[in-house]
Amino acid sequence: MEEKLVKEIPAKSENLSQWYIEVIRKAELADYAPMKGMMVIRPAGYAIWENIQRLLDKRFKETGHVNAYFPLFIPESFLKKEAEHVEGFAPEVAWVTRGGSEELQEPLAVRPTSEAIICAMYSKWVRSWRDLPLLINQWANVVRWEKVTRPFLRTTEFLWQEGHTVHASFEDAQEEVLRILGIYQDFIEKELAIKVYAGRKSDREKFAGALYTYTVEALMPDGKALQAGTSHNLGQNFSKAFEIRFEDRDQKLKYAWQTSWGVSTRLIGATVMVHGDDDGLVLPPKVAPHQVVIVPIFKARDKDKVLSVGEKLHADLKGRFRTVYDSREEYTPGWKFAEWELRGVPLRIEIGPRDLEKNQAVFVRRDTREKFPVPLDEVVHRAEEVLEEIQRDLFKRSEDFTRENTREAKDYEEFREILEERRGFVVAPWCGREECELKVKEETKATIRLIPPEGESVEGKKCIVCGRPAKHVVYFARSY
Amino acid sequence: MEEKLVKEIPAKSENLSQWYIEVIRKAELADYAPMKGMMVIRPAGYAIWENIQRLLDKRFKETGHVNAYFPLFIPESFLKKEAEHVEGFAPEVAWVTRGGSEELQEPLAVRPTSEAIICAMYSKWVRSWRDLPLLINQWANVVRWEKVTRPFLRTTEFLWQEGHTVHASFEDAQEEVLRILGIYQDFIEKELAIKVYAGRKSDREKFAGALYTYTVEALMPDGKALQAGTSHNLGQNFSKAFEIRFEDRDQKLKYAWQTSWGVSTRLIGATVMVHGDDDGLVLPPKVAPHQVVIVPIFKARDKDKVLSVGEKLHADLKGRFRTVYDSREEYTPGWKFAEWELRGVPLRIEIGPRDLEKNQAVFVRRDTREKFPVPLDEVVHRAEEVLEEIQRDLFKRSEDFTRENTREAKDYEEFREILEERRGFVVAPWCGREECELKVKEETKATIRLIPPEGESVEGKKCIVCGRPAKHVVYFARSY
Repeated sequence: MEEKLVKEIPAKSENLSQWYIEVIRKAELADYAPMKGMMVIRPAGYAIWENIQRLLDKRFKETGHVNAYFPLFIPESFLKKEAEHVEGFAPEVAWVTRGGSEELQEPLAVRPTSEAIICAMYSKWVRSWRDLPLLINQWANVVRWEKVTRPFLRTTEFLWQEGHTVHASFEDAQEEVLRILGIYQDFIEKELAIKVYAGRKSDREKFAGALYTYTVEALMPDGKALQAGTSHNLGQNFSKAFEIRFEDRDQKLKYAWQTSWGVSTRLIGATVMVHGDDDGLVLPPKVAPHQVVIVPIFKARDKDKVLSVGEKLHADLKGRFRTVYDSREEYTPGWKFAEWELRGVPLRIEIGPRDLEKNQAVFVRRDTREKFPVPLDEVVHRAEEVLEEIQRDLFKRSEDFTRENTREAKDYEEFREILEERRGFVVAPWCGREECELKVKEETKATIRLIPPEGESVEGKKCIVCGRPAKHVVYFARSY
Repeated sequence: MEEKLVKEIPAKSENLSQWYIEVIRKAELADYAPMKGMMVIRPAGYAIWENIQRLLDKRFKETGHVNAYFPLFIPESFLKKEAEHVEGFAPEVAWVTRGGSEELQEPLAVRPTSEAIICAMYSKWVRSWRDLPLLINQWANVVRWEKVTRPFLRTTEFLWQEGHTVHASFEDAQEEVLRILGIYQDFIEKELAIKVYAGRKSDREKFAGALYTYTVEALMPDGKALQAGTSHNLGQNFSKAFEIRFEDRDQKLKYAWQTSWGVSTRLIGATVMVHGDDDGLVLPPKVAPHQVVIVPIFKARDKDKVLSVGEKLHADLKGRFRTVYDSREEYTPGWKFAEWELRGVPLRIEIGPRDLEKNQAVFVRRDTREKFPVPLDEVVHRAEEVLEEIQRDLFKRSEDFTRENTREAKDYEEFREILEERRGFVVAPWCGREECELKVKEETKATIRLIPPEGESVEGKKCIVCGRPAKHVVYFARSY
């Protein structure tokens, strides 16, 4: 076959950034919209999001959460009620100032996040301890006026879910925050096959208005960390700003305790970056729009026979797996192989006349390119096993890569050297002072990605920057 | 029991409008947001929307459609490309004029509908007949700056799905338009249990920019019609404005043919209005957030026994039906009955000590109040039957009501009298001239709701207004 099989994309290892942009466009996950910083999520990308929604929504509902929908527009005065919150978000808000032909008296923010409007409603709904906990999630679009954008990872508009809960005590809120963090970690590792570290943010890096922010962080192939989801303990900051009070069992009126948490379409970007290769996407079976592609291979004389076996296979597989049967005749098998590899379908099943003679099909794994025959009557059973193996192996690779690129630094010189030369996570003791955090950022571009939940003892350890006694052993990295 | 059982709502038959507003707030389907014309869809309302989404999305996917997501913001210049389109929508657009601290050079419309941005993308994606048909749907929020609003029926922001398809010929597009109209009718009648009439809109009433608009229309209890879904044949209007051309099999470059279609959260409003009664919501089992509520009734001495049977029942039912088990002790059974009736749960199952003696539970239908014992070992099986009966009976009632309130008028005097006194649909011959359509609107507030697909012969019939020869026999009604 002399035809050109592959839509050319740059090598992933040589130019991750360019590879990422190209693979997303060529695999038709997304396209640039004509407005700066905005993108269109095309069907191949949106189907991944639908799988993410389904798998995550199930976990939320199993833990007692329900969905609702709050308005897109938030009056400026509401956004200003929580001082830190507005300071954090005001620079990136898109403002509606005209409705029809009338100038609005008060500009409306297109929601950058919904704490302000949701808390305004909660102050009406929460009256008694009987109303708590209030466990509401919302699937929605949000807008942040970003200067530098990149498809899925940072765009002016994106899709996300945002949970907003109300509790009767700090402990209940904190338990919820960690429950959700656990759900995020479990979801990202099991379904997206991406290893993440979970922990708390430093005060400098926390959400605008939160008491504590917890995060799950993944490592991208270029050694930069990516914040994949956050869960905030809001304390009573918003309940005091918005007057959310309840009568407790002791009949006293108390300010409520709150949390908020979210993940976004950014997870699609992470999945692309972590698993893809030089030929395109490699999608984890659990969220791949198509898990299996069947490609019949035939010349005119074998056509009927091959197609009828292909159809039979398709009928057997499609009830169990998201399967596509590519029997188009205007494209060659070679073209189809390249196309479905580009699109990241985990398992390809080829079936040609010589296979039929042997009563077999040929399996090709997208991740390893491993190619092996499977007896026709074992196809369904083996497909299930192979998809599970792929899912497991993808996670294993991500886990190994992340661990191999998590290093300890013995002194500040080595710390800088790792961040400059090898990147990845650097684990080091920190005194807890913002001064040292800022120095690191200035000199290495790295930030504290997380403070692990129960770090090793810091007894006798010294801050990697200033040498003062350490408060925590933390994870530093450059990040997206 | 002396306690006040019911959250008071006005009688439905006396004041539908007030009843509607109150039942929505008290059953917690929605609440007013602090911004004029905007609402919050609360969990009980959003759960209905989730069921609508699931059941409709399945039908779309089975007919080859895929989902995608397009930007919320549309530059003013794009909206202006199709002249009729912008004229129709400009008066109700919300405009973003500031992003962060910068004034935008070109205002961005918050999408009132997405033809303009989607067509801009399609002009990049569509190249060849091989790319057609392109069958994309989007689930999204849209904003229309409305002056008079009412929860679910007309709000500044609402949720909807909008399909946008591209075809190689007029015939293919027309087939799609009618396929979708059929899906809408089937969905609304089978799942929402609301009878609808399907047909075409007059030119005056069609979508801004469409060649033809098709509609499904439902009759509300006050005799006003409600447009429940529309499907538009856009012809080549948008493909010419946005340069969507494809190379056909004959190698000629041709303008594509397009459709768009949508239903919205308005369907929730229709469901509430059609089925509800003086005690609150009556929800069709197919879309009810909870299909069954189990209420155990006990005094201290029977508590353990009753609760253990209740739990067993719950375990048996919850895998098959959306079931809630209300074993709360801080509320009396009477309070619970009223509460779940208000919320419209189709089937209540009561279980008390005397029932246990007889090895039975008591079923209470929400729609008819019918109350009857069911042997414990038949509960699951009978619940399934009863839910099906309720679904069927609700539709039957809606169908009967709609038919009874669809009348023919023998002359214009009777026509006006029906619209003034009895409302409902009035079927009458029409000459096809806008002049008569306008006269009717002015004198009776009624509009042509639809022109049926294959009307009776108009041979010898005369326009109800002007007496000229009739072109169609059409359905008039006042409407929401």
